[in-house]
Amino acid sequence: MAESDRLVDRNPLPEGIEPRLVAQLTFIAEIDRLKNVFRASPLAADERRENDAEHSWHLAMMVLLLAEYADEPIDTAHAVKLVLVHDLVEIYAGDSPVFDLSSQVDQRRREVDAADRLFPLLPADQAGELRALWDEFEEGATPEARFGKAMDRLEPMLLNWLNEGGTWGMPGATVETVRRREAGVVAASTTLGDAVGRLVTEGVRRGWIRPDA
Amino acid sequence: MAESDRLVDRNPLPEGIEPRLVAQLTFIAEIDRLKNVFRASPLAADERRENDAEHSWHLAMMVLLLAEYADEPIDTAHAVKLVLVHDLVEIYAGDSPVFDLSSQVDQRRREVDAADRLFPLLPADQAGELRALWDEFEEGATPEARFGKAMDRLEPMLLNWLNEGGTWGMPGATVETVRRREAGVVAASTTLGDAVGRLVTEGVRRGWIRPDA
Repeated sequence: MAESDRLVDRNPLPEGIEPRLVAQLTFIAEIDRLKNVFRASPLAADERRENDAEHSWHLAMMVLLLAEYADEPIDTAHAVKLVLVHDLVEIYAGDSPVFDLSSQVDQRRREVDAADRLFPLLPADQAGELRALWDEFEEGATPEARFGKAMDRLEPMLLNWLNEGGTWGMPGATVETVRRREAGVVAASTTLGDAVGRLVTEGVRRGWIRPDA
Repeated sequence: MAESDRLVDRNPLPEGIEPRLVAQLTFIAEIDRLKNVFRASPLAADERRENDAEHSWHLAMMVLLLAEYADEPIDTAHAVKLVLVHDLVEIYAGDSPVFDLSSQVDQRRREVDAADRLFPLLPADQAGELRALWDEFEEGATPEARFGKAMDRLEPMLLNWLNEGGTWGMPGATVETVRRREAGVVAASTTLGDAVGRLVTEGVRRGWIRPDA
């Protein structure tokens, strides 16, 4: 990506701001793009799809409100950071809907390339911190990452429920693939896994989720 | 507000989920509405205005990245919570643009009424916690609230800069009213206040901010 493709280059910051803060403001301006990355999931509140920035806000609120259900104790503040940062790479890599198998070709490579481009806009210490948060979420090996991923599965399930189908109607979605998403909730929380299981079971019964072929 | 006006009442949750979790999921569904509350500020990344949910996400990222510039030490995790929650009342009260004086008539009463309706959707302990966070942000009496408010002033200033004017072009905006917003940044951070001062001074020089009448 050429430097001139950054949002801040449309109107460079005035002279006299220290270089470290210029780098931080450049990154803060650039991530405005996350508001323009649209997911497959429909909103409950309006007739449009959800964008990654508002989705990330919703997950952070869910971490704060549902942390008590984590099967392993979690550091809530750390889990909030993970979900705030988890989709940033989609600014350059785009969204890869889970029920759209074609979008998942090269997804990992595209997202790593995006991380390599995006985070270094920050001063090196903060670039390293955000990269570590993104890697931790991707790997899913800590209790906080597992809980963050559970929120990332649960939120679109709730939006689908409120929309009487939502992305459950996509060609790649069947009971099996939906139950695989449910497993990501179960892995972090027995109670939330049970609740999502009820949404899915009832969604199947009402015909909002297609049986396996 | 009648119960049937809640988003979740369009499609009530399935039987068998414990009442505490039903209340939490009801609130989590309801706050989807924040994605549909639009601010006066234009995005940098697209030709539309910003909504409160993506704005709240942006402020949380700014707290994480700019906390080092707070003049008083802050608990970053607490400041993140404040900004995640600070605009929730606008779900029922609507946005009140700072440069639109008419929108500020009764703003405080409308927002308190909204808080009294929204937070009690949660179990009492969490309703109290979120109400306390909102009250703390509104009062601006703690270092974290002051820093959160500084982010809430700085972010639209940066978006205005990137848009070569933005809300600085609204009828109520002049050097004096813009400088009053700048003061909210200065109150929490000398360094960030200086940077915003440069944006405003240069914005005036370029004619993006109108002189006082």
